[in-house]
Amino acid sequence: MPNQVEEFNAYRVKMNDKILADNNKVIKRIFNLDTNAFSEGALDVKTKELLGLVASTVLRCDDCIKYHLESCHKEGLSKEQVMETLSIATLIGGTIVIPHLRKAYEYWEALEEQA
Amino acid sequence: MPNQVEEFNAYRVKMNDKILADNNKVIKRIFNLDTNAFSEGALDVKTKELLGLVASTVLRCDDCIKYHLESCHKEGLSKEQVMETLSIATLIGGTIVIPHLRKAYEYWEALEEQA
Amino acid sequence: MPNQVEEFNAYRVKMNDKILADNNKVIKRIFNLDTNAFSEGALDVKTKELLGLVASTVLRCDDCIKYHLESCHKEGLSKEQVMETLSIATLIGGTIVIPHLRKAYEYWEALEEQA
Amino acid sequence: MPNQVEEFNAYRVKMNDKILADNNKVIKRIFNLDTNAFSEGALDVKTKELLGLVASTVLRCDDCIKYHLESCHKEGLSKEQVMETLSIATLIGGTIVIPHLRKAYEYWEALEEQA
Amino acid sequence: MPNQVEEFNAYRVKMNDKILADNNKVIKRIFNLDTNAFSEGALDVKTKELLGLVASTVLRCDDCIKYHLESCHKEGLSKEQVMETLSIATLIGGTIVIPHLRKAYEYWEALEEQA
Amino acid sequence: MPNQVEEFNAYRVKMNDKILADNNKVIKRIFNLDTNAFSEGALDVKTKELLGLVASTVLRCDDCIKYHLESCHKEGLSKEQVMETLSIATLIGGTIVIPHLRKAYEYWEALEEQA
Repeated sequence: MPNQVEEFNAYRVKMNDKILADNNKVIKRIFNLDTNAFSEGALDVKTKELLGLVASTVLRCDDCIKYHLESCHKEGLSKEQVMETLSIATLIGGTIVIPHLRKAYEYWEALEEQA
Repeated sequence: MPNQVEEFNAYRVKMNDKILADNNKVIKRIFNLDTNAFSEGALDVKTKELLGLVASTVLRCDDCIKYHLESCHKEGLSKEQVMETLSIATLIGGTIVIPHLRKAYEYWEALEEQA
Repeated sequence: MPNQVEEFNAYRVKMNDKILADNNKVIKRIFNLDTNAFSEGALDVKTKELLGLVASTVLRCDDCIKYHLESCHKEGLSKEQVMETLSIATLIGGTIVIPHLRKAYEYWEALEEQA
Repeated sequence: MPNQVEEFNAYRVKMNDKILADNNKVIKRIFNLDTNAFSEGALDVKTKELLGLVASTVLRCDDCIKYHLESCHKEGLSKEQVMETLSIATLIGGTIVIPHLRKAYEYWEALEEQA
Repeated sequence: MPNQVEEFNAYRVKMNDKILADNNKVIKRIFNLDTNAFSEGALDVKTKELLGLVASTVLRCDDCIKYHLESCHKEGLSKEQVMETLSIATLIGGTIVIPHLRKAYEYWEALEEQA
Repeated sequence: MPNQVEEFNAYRVKMNDKILADNNKVIKRIFNLDTNAFSEGALDVKTKELLGLVASTVLRCDDCIKYHLESCHKEGLSKEQVMETLSIATLIGGTIVIPHLRKAYEYWEALEEQA
């Protein structure tokens, strides 16, 4: 089985590099804002990563979910905290969120195996 | 060519089992509600499955579409009834539904071949 | 209290007339398709109206919900049938559907009072 | 100027009561799950309310935003914490979130004035 | 009848001022990017405003539609060009776009009357 | 590496042919409208293709994006014009658009290599 964490990150980094090299100012600034928005402020980084995770999940963006799951994992958030976040997403977003919940669960397992 | 019906169901069941074993109460209850909502009441099961299909289609959730297509097939709904449901979804949801319509059509064929 | 059923219909008809008078071919044909898609075929009109209702509800379009609720009412569908349809929409679409459920319930009451 | 906090809550409570009195089992259980999902667990109530707020905002549901803003206010979350949450929602959800940000800001002011 | 163009702009400006005064860096930068993205580049301003209009319409954001309709009007785009843009939005986004098409049409009339 | 442009088109044409052969009148007319809506009128074909591209991108429909990218390429639109269109989509639709931006960029490269 290919390592889906590495595969996802390799593709993400490769394409981000190409897009940023293209020098579209609006896109570059949006990419920069992303770093900014998730750094510590009135809320700590852990809380912000969970906010990113729940927003990505209700919007049903698999790649965004993976990205925030990885940050959650790095920040030391527990599986229970991640699952409660995903349960809120499933309640608010409805059962159409479930297919994304399956993939999120699988990706979290891959992150834990890799550690 | 791999059998996409079996593949879809195997993955769905495997991940559902893992998620439910995790014992998050909110998620478990949402999974249970799903069974409840589609059982016979003031509306019969066939109508409810078509409701699930059209909702999944306008929300553009391929896995949800597959799930309801399979239930429609088991309930003995005809291809014409399924296609009329998908046509309403395409009209209400617009041409962005068309890529999901293609996959839905392909999955229905796989269901018919398997029978 | 203003009659919200009459108000909704008066505005809808007034603006539809203006838009259609404008003679944009694509828009006119989409309006025509609407009539076509909900007429009897492999599925009866009642079922199709419920399909229109559930699709409008998961897509959270209040005016579309009102339009299909009125057609459901005219077709003689019962409150229980409508509520089961809305319950499926709430399950599939999640709790963000609830504010639209409130308005739908209120509009159904207005339709019943008017009868 | 009418008090928009009271108005919103009065309508919400009135319609919820009617809907729950109607005894649709699926809808009743979804309403119950809502209480469940936002009570303390691996995550505290404050964090969960912010999760509810960011999810409601990216899904652009004004009434859901109001509901979670009020809970955030009751839980003693600060304006800065709420604004950081809304800024993440605007970044993830894009500029189409801005009209909802305006209403959220206005509602937060109404909550603060009322206190 | 109140002037809906003035009303919309007054509220928009008032709330934007409050939000920007609040000094959330992420939100301020997103607001700034908006000006940037719609200024002349490889595409002229007229084309960009139509892009903003069609995106706002398929995403069904009434306030965003009004904002871009006003810019289209100021840029001297014709009613036919605006209607063709809205027809593409209705085709791609489906009949759930129609309620927003009605309001867009009404707002365009208000813009023309005001001129 | 498989040629993703050919692969995408082969699948699209194969499934469209099957769906159209099925003779559902509503679906056939929606397919026809698509050709109609993007032909020259008050707006030229290039502008219309960019409208289709931005709408597909904010709605996060990868296959729709590919379809319009290919038409943009055939119409002779430049990479800069396409990137400005995608930057507007990313700003309006938010960072959840970024995974689709990556695939769009990759597809545009494939179109250029193929030329």
